Amino acid sequence: MGDRSEIGVVLLGLGVVGSGVAHALLEKADSFSQRVGRPLALRRILVRDVLRKRGLDLPEGLLTDDADEALSADCDIVVEVMGGERPACDYIERSLRAGRRVVTANKEVMAKHGARLLAMASETGGDVLYEASVGGGIPIISPLKRDLSANEISTLRAIINGTTNYILTRMSLGGVDFSSALRRAQELGYAEPEPANDIEGHDAAYKLAILASLAFHTDVHPDKVYREGITRLNPRDFRYASEFGYAIKLLAIARRHDDGVEARVHPVLVPEGELLAKVDGVLNAVQVEGDLIGRVLFQGAGAGALPTTSAIMADVLDAARSIVQGGRPYPWRYTSDVPVKPIEDLVSRCYIRVEVADRPGVLAGIGRAFGDNNVSIASVIQKETDEEAQTAEIVIMTHAATEASVQASIRQVEGLEEVRQVGNFLRVED
Amino acid sequence: MGDRSEIGVVLLGLGVVGSGVAHALLEKADSFSQRVGRPLALRRILVRDVLRKRGLDLPEGLLTDDADEALSADCDIVVEVMGGERPACDYIERSLRAGRRVVTANKEVMAKHGARLLAMASETGGDVLYEASVGGGIPIISPLKRDLSANEISTLRAIINGTTNYILTRMSLGGVDFSSALRRAQELGYAEPEPANDIEGHDAAYKLAILASLAFHTDVHPDKVYREGITRLNPRDFRYASEFGYAIKLLAIARRHDDGVEARVHPVLVPEGELLAKVDGVLNAVQVEGDLIGRVLFQGAGAGALPTTSAIMADVLDAARSIVQGGRPYPWRYTSDVPVKPIEDLVSRCYIRVEVADRPGVLAGIGRAFGDNNVSIASVIQKETDEEAQTAEIVIMTHAATEASVQASIRQVEGLEEVRQVGNFLRVED
Repeated sequence: MGDRSEIGVVLLGLGVVGSGVAHALLEKADSFSQRVGRPLALRRILVRDVLRKRGLDLPEGLLTDDADEALSADCDIVVEVMGGERPACDYIERSLRAGRRVVTANKEVMAKHGARLLAMASETGGDVLYEASVGGGIPIISPLKRDLSANEISTLRAIINGTTNYILTRMSLGGVDFSSALRRAQELGYAEPEPANDIEGHDAAYKLAILASLAFHTDVHPDKVYREGITRLNPRDFRYASEFGYAIKLLAIARRHDDGVEARVHPVLVPEGELLAKVDGVLNAVQVEGDLIGRVLFQGAGAGALPTTSAIMADVLDAARSIVQGGRPYPWRYTSDVPVKPIEDLVSRCYIRVEVADRPGVLAGIGRAFGDNNVSIASVIQKETDEEAQTAEIVIMTHAATEASVQASIRQVEGLEEVRQVGNFLRVED
Repeated sequence: MGDRSEIGVVLLGLGVVGSGVAHALLEKADSFSQRVGRPLALRRILVRDVLRKRGLDLPEGLLTDDADEALSADCDIVVEVMGGERPACDYIERSLRAGRRVVTANKEVMAKHGARLLAMASETGGDVLYEASVGGGIPIISPLKRDLSANEISTLRAIINGTTNYILTRMSLGGVDFSSALRRAQELGYAEPEPANDIEGHDAAYKLAILASLAFHTDVHPDKVYREGITRLNPRDFRYASEFGYAIKLLAIARRHDDGVEARVHPVLVPEGELLAKVDGVLNAVQVEGDLIGRVLFQGAGAGALPTTSAIMADVLDAARSIVQGGRPYPWRYTSDVPVKPIEDLVSRCYIRVEVADRPGVLAGIGRAFGDNNVSIASVIQKETDEEAQTAEIVIMTHAATEASVQASIRQVEGLEEVRQVGNFLRVED
């Protein structure tokens, strides 16, 4: 491989992650060149404001605020780290049409448009690599594409949003309520000032759509992912869950059934002995179950400039090596078309917390509501009577039942005269 | 990619793992063909005895006991699952000389001859893939080659021998001694009738040589890996370690220093809070630390026919895809030549258990032995006096000190009149 000509890289975006990538490309040029067999050269960086002061010591003339200029630069690899759906998706498409290898950290674009972009890459001889879109530095896209590719994957369960995992860990260990845990996460920079994307589960749903699509070789659109956030959780839920031997985690769960796939993001009760129950703070973890491999777990930092740079640069170096090798890229392709099952079909054990008037006969009414819907109750505890308000709290664990029948039971419970409100409802993931 | 012609596979060996691979190739032919873009065809299987009954339903005429016939079959990919150094290594060389892609699960061959085989592959346009040689189904070779390739890796710590981890878990939780834990492991099929390869750390040393070579881009020969087995461990060591807040694990540790790399396999004290301390039974886990990614952990089944088949087939499918892509393989290459440091240079905290006569002044003599060698003691506990024999046990935790000075202290302690023997000496991995 005597060809020492440079492999050109264009960078779209120079935020925290973009700066990490630019820094790595410049600082580690020698070792990257050794590892690839040819030097990488940063040709252009698209920014919003070329005059802004940055902490980076960049060579002259790299910055441009003109997308056309950046996208028409002589290059082999385009790294998109702008974030957001538009114009990022358009720039990726333009790059693919030009037959380039695109490396992106953009979960929204890949979740919504991944199938189309991969098909486009296949046609033009380009490629889309997106390891950084899920789980920060944790290798998970490439293991699903390569290392687990001989498996039929049955289940994928993941903690893939560090913000919510930090909040839940704090609520669990500190006994604090949701809003003060969120405030602390914001002070530490773990949560955005506008936190809805994380705490309502959108971010995790995008990531699950990407992972489930890979695991099941089919296009799972994020709109099909059932989603609940963590805002309804109460410190008491953590206490009661712990009494039953469970932790509460926001899990992203995908499971293969004969008639479709399950894809959902919501808080669940996880048995305390399970590895996922012990993943605390901003850490991320993905557990995959396959017919050959059994269970395998990947754990590490799910966000941050450096871990994300690690994932982006892994894709860049991989793309560069594939250029050195000379073959045509082999973009991921979906080989099946499997429906996503509605949440109503889910069969799961459930935890239900009900606030009731402290009167005799309450339990009988609640029991009847579940019985009428064929949901059988595994255990009940009565809790924390507030003497002044004359209310009590009843916590119910059901046996496995369909979501539809549990929801029907809950509606019936809500109609009971003695019931103040159904405080919370959580599924159990055994 | 209209080329639907078959990709030929020859299998060398049809033991437990080989049967798993053959079964997967036959049973999953359709999905593999979809995932690769061209069908895989099993062309020949080299066995010792073609007449032996097997549980597999193989097509006629696949088996041969003639190595020349197997190796000269029309094929693109050779899968070596015979095990042992010879003739496996010779067959791999012959296959590489023919420009073939070789997939092997052979840790001994890859640890001892990996550098040479990879260089040979580079010259002939072949490739050697060896994901299955370490950690069973856990993806670790490919993450080191690809996903972590932008990192300078500083530390790699791993539990990569399930047999010894099972024995240590049993000694720790059950309080039983080494030989009865070993017997149980043998009954369960986790340990061989001749267990030296596992319990003396040879197996882990081969695997560490492979991982360290990848992590540091240099050839770490297994002879350079410092190695101690687990046979000297006593149930009391687990009890004392636990009092100090540590678990005992057989770790494979590789660490990068400015002047070389550290590579060692021996039992160590691991703080109970660490993830590696919680990896129990036959599970394996590898923790990697890099400048960008921070810490990342891979955990799963470290052995077994199906997980190993998962790893082998991942390599086979990857090789097949690279054939479909049409490029020249890009075998791993070492880019640096770094010396392996001798164990004497190691700086570590240590745990030392000393059996002494229960007489006044014993501690003073021991204290002097460490002081004379500039090893400072962090804490001492005196234990379990055997009144009849008039012996006591002293357990010492040192501050960080060089291996050479700790060993000199131990020799001096052994020379003391009041000292019956140094019961055990273990390094601490904080």
